Amino acid sequence: MSTPPPRRASAAVASPTAPLIGLGAGAPVLAFDVGGTDIKGALFGEDGHIRCLARIPTPVAGDRTGQAVIAEIVNLAGRFAEVQPSVNPRALGLVVPGHIDTRSGTAVFAENMGWKDVAFRERVSALTGLPVHFGHDVRAAGGAEFRLGAATGLRDVVVVVIGTGIAGALFVDGRPYDGDGLAGEIGHAKVASGPTCACGGTGCLEAVASAAAIARRYSALTGAQVAGAKEVLDRSQAGDPDAKLVWKDAVDALALSFSHVVALLAPEAIVVGGGLAEAGPALLSPLTARLDEYLTFQRRPRILAARLGENAGLLGAAIGARELMVAGGTR
Amino acid sequence: MSTPPPRRASAAVASPTAPLIGLGAGAPVLAFDVGGTDIKGALFGEDGHIRCLARIPTPVAGDRTGQAVIAEIVNLAGRFAEVQPSVNPRALGLVVPGHIDTRSGTAVFAENMGWKDVAFRERVSALTGLPVHFGHDVRAAGGAEFRLGAATGLRDVVVVVIGTGIAGALFVDGRPYDGDGLAGEIGHAKVASGPTCACGGTGCLEAVASAAAIARRYSALTGAQVAGAKEVLDRSQAGDPDAKLVWKDAVDALALSFSHVVALLAPEAIVVGGGLAEAGPALLSPLTARLDEYLTFQRRPRILAARLGENAGLLGAAIGARELMVAGGTR
Repeated sequence: MSTPPPRRASAAVASPTAPLIGLGAGAPVLAFDVGGTDIKGALFGEDGHIRCLARIPTPVAGDRTGQAVIAEIVNLAGRFAEVQPSVNPRALGLVVPGHIDTRSGTAVFAENMGWKDVAFRERVSALTGLPVHFGHDVRAAGGAEFRLGAATGLRDVVVVVIGTGIAGALFVDGRPYDGDGLAGEIGHAKVASGPTCACGGTGCLEAVASAAAIARRYSALTGAQVAGAKEVLDRSQAGDPDAKLVWKDAVDALALSFSHVVALLAPEAIVVGGGLAEAGPALLSPLTARLDEYLTFQRRPRILAARLGENAGLLGAAIGARELMVAGGTR
Repeated sequence: MSTPPPRRASAAVASPTAPLIGLGAGAPVLAFDVGGTDIKGALFGEDGHIRCLARIPTPVAGDRTGQAVIAEIVNLAGRFAEVQPSVNPRALGLVVPGHIDTRSGTAVFAENMGWKDVAFRERVSALTGLPVHFGHDVRAAGGAEFRLGAATGLRDVVVVVIGTGIAGALFVDGRPYDGDGLAGEIGHAKVASGPTCACGGTGCLEAVASAAAIARRYSALTGAQVAGAKEVLDRSQAGDPDAKLVWKDAVDALALSFSHVVALLAPEAIVVGGGLAEAGPALLSPLTARLDEYLTFQRRPRILAARLGENAGLLGAAIGARELMVAGGTR
């Protein structure tokens, strides 16, 4: 199989314009959140606020995507140093999607990234000379919401990120729980009689209620192409019965999934983030009502909107980097 | 509403005949496991083995059931002292079903026990002069399986007890997690389109797959009375198509429920205990196979039979009592 050359993007390295929740005082750190579409990078100062922020397209390089991503990260780190020479980062936090091994610092596998067994922590550390925290994107975003965002002050929380896929980050008794990197995969439990999911299962939550699934199901039902789940919601609110049906199915599937989460873990809150959560009350109100119908004697969790938006993963990566400083080692 | 007088039972206080897994060396303790049908009590010696074991019917006394149970516990403790005067218990472990508050030592509510806000820990401690550990029956049984039984040596485990009801005890990163006493209620999450559950829900796992539900559903389907789930299994194995259908529905519901547990928590093992687990491979083999069909990329948990049998709750209560000695206080 021939591998296309890495796409190089002209990074927009800029000071952030929107105010962001900060990390608090501590060591300056670099943070990178690698996604299927783009890589976000940031330099956090001693005051815990972002000094430089960049967003570049994720290089598409087949089975060399891991190496190309590492090169982009190192490149961005260099540019941050040029723009902000007085800020000397002391650690780097890097989060990626898919199945990872935090012990070895390796990305084991990610269907949508084309990589397998990439030793991110070792390579990035060797190339930047910094201790590297290596983590999972959804769990990092969840950790940021837990520490700094919507779930601050709670002990038992599930943060669900609904975007192209659906996954959750778990916090029990005040601690993150990741089940050797395999917990929180609520997107792949059966909540409906169909359709078939990319994982091979049938009726998975992700196949009904992810932002991608909502757009796909509407198109399949009507033959109409839509830009995304947002457009399906807009059409639903305008009275389109097909859009209403697809949206209702998604809300029902999420509510049923959440009812299992509640029965098993009895969390104080379920925080909903990711692209679909941008629908706000149009998602959370019917979801809360439908969940309420599924529950009987159980403790009702608060259903909260994520607060950190698209930078939650970056903040989580930065928290991980900061913790390396506290722990005094690399992990 | 007139309240019937407490039934008093003649307790068979006896030395145990069957060998049991012991607690290991430590302080002698008393343990009581209160259920809807009977109260089990035991005196554990310094070697961690049971010196006296008793089983009496649970008194039925309407809204005075809590007081009647406390009287029976104190009575049994006195009889143990008569039979084994040389063993001086230093703490008492007491576990009960339903919703409890471990902080205040109170049984908040239990539908099948007729009590509400009974201050078990305070009363039993005052009447026996011993520090009292107060806990939940299923979580105690789970704790015993985790420490001494089927799940020894594992970190991430769910112990599911299937009897009259269905509930689970969770262990994550090597620690019990109880969600303020509300976690593990997998019996009350929807896994089927029906029937109505005692909790008010529809298609709850407990309404399809508990031992009681299996017998009830078979009777409803055929008009035949059966002694219990065991008889339904026997008839199923003899080729009765109605019994086969009821048993298959139960296995399928359990497998679907377990698939949600796996997606969310990714446990290393699910331990199956309670009366229904006595079916052994006739339950666990088809359950494991059906669960396997629901899973795709997830880690397959080991499906293990509980090892401590009907005394798991007693052992868990005794562990709790022993821990009071280590902690040096009462809780």
